[in-house]
Amino acid sequence: MDLLKKQILAEGRALAGGIIRVDSFLNHQVDPVLIDAIAEEFCRRFTGIECDRILTVEASGIAPAVMTALKLKVPAVFAKKSRPSTSSGKVYTAKVHSFTKQKDYDITVSADFIRQGERVIIIDDFLAHGSASTGLIDIIHHAGAEVTAIGIVIEKGFQDGGRILREKGYRVESLAIIENIEGNTIQFR
Amino acid sequence: MDLLKKQILAEGRALAGGIIRVDSFLNHQVDPVLIDAIAEEFCRRFTGIECDRILTVEASGIAPAVMTALKLKVPAVFAKKSRPSTSSGKVYTAKVHSFTKQKDYDITVSADFIRQGERVIIIDDFLAHGSASTGLIDIIHHAGAEVTAIGIVIEKGFQDGGRILREKGYRVESLAIIENIEGNTIQFR
Repeated sequence: MDLLKKQILAEGRALAGGIIRVDSFLNHQVDPVLIDAIAEEFCRRFTGIECDRILTVEASGIAPAVMTALKLKVPAVFAKKSRPSTSSGKVYTAKVHSFTKQKDYDITVSADFIRQGERVIIIDDFLAHGSASTGLIDIIHHAGAEVTAIGIVIEKGFQDGGRILREKGYRVESLAIIENIEGNTIQFR
Repeated sequence: MDLLKKQILAEGRALAGGIIRVDSFLNHQVDPVLIDAIAEEFCRRFTGIECDRILTVEASGIAPAVMTALKLKVPAVFAKKSRPSTSSGKVYTAKVHSFTKQKDYDITVSADFIRQGERVIIIDDFLAHGSASTGLIDIIHHAGAEVTAIGIVIEKGFQDGGRILREKGYRVESLAIIENIEGNTIQFR
């Protein structure tokens, strides 16, 4: 997706440890026009794929997930990183490891918002080692629902999450795949 | 805003302690068509108000903030509840008390994303005691910027945040104001 790649090259910063800083348009400040274009591109790639709900994780996944959900006319659900105090009833949880923050955390989704037999598309801002996506997949399977596609804004192609998920048979659509980072230079696949 | 009030009455649940559970359409699952209508209504109410950026807090503020930002063609910034590991450089922070979760936390915004002299609209999902809004106002003022309006999806009119902010001269536009809760019955102002 050219518009996204241009913005990554113009504003993204490669930091130590394979971290890519895109906080000027994706995960701190959000460029809504870009996110709208991202959602449009997800819809194009998901043509013909069944979708009852979109699932993401708070917080940076919310903008692309909700914009895509608006175009697909389905609800968007965001998994919470702490069990919500206003929730009661059954929840699904999964453990996720953040390599960026070097810690484990639980993600939680109310059982009210993923039902048996549903077709769910996962959307997230980043795919690196695949820990968040794997947690979301676990939750969807706990609920007896099906993952029909995974939409990623930026995949770190130099880490193994995308390869592992594709080898497991998931359809992963990444709008920009960063092949490697040489010094401060970001190169796309 | 009738559509919102209808959905609150149909799906909202009044819990002990003045908590209103709206996780089926606003803060866990998101109804994107409703959020789009909310954004449209914010734009209508903000006609003629100057806006360089929209500021909200992760996570539940993001959907209405980004949808409104898309219509106003300005960036949306979400304050983070933990200092982001990919951030460097100057940040503004403010302390916020969550009465629902009974704890204090810091919110952080990079100085790159609020600049001196800018006109900023705050958008959030809830206004209760006004602690989150006050934290965002503090951050905007630290940056030398101006708060031109505050847009709230649901105001708890039985708590004092809205009154305090309006008495201080802020223009607060709340799309639904809950006057009181009698038993399980939600009554609007």
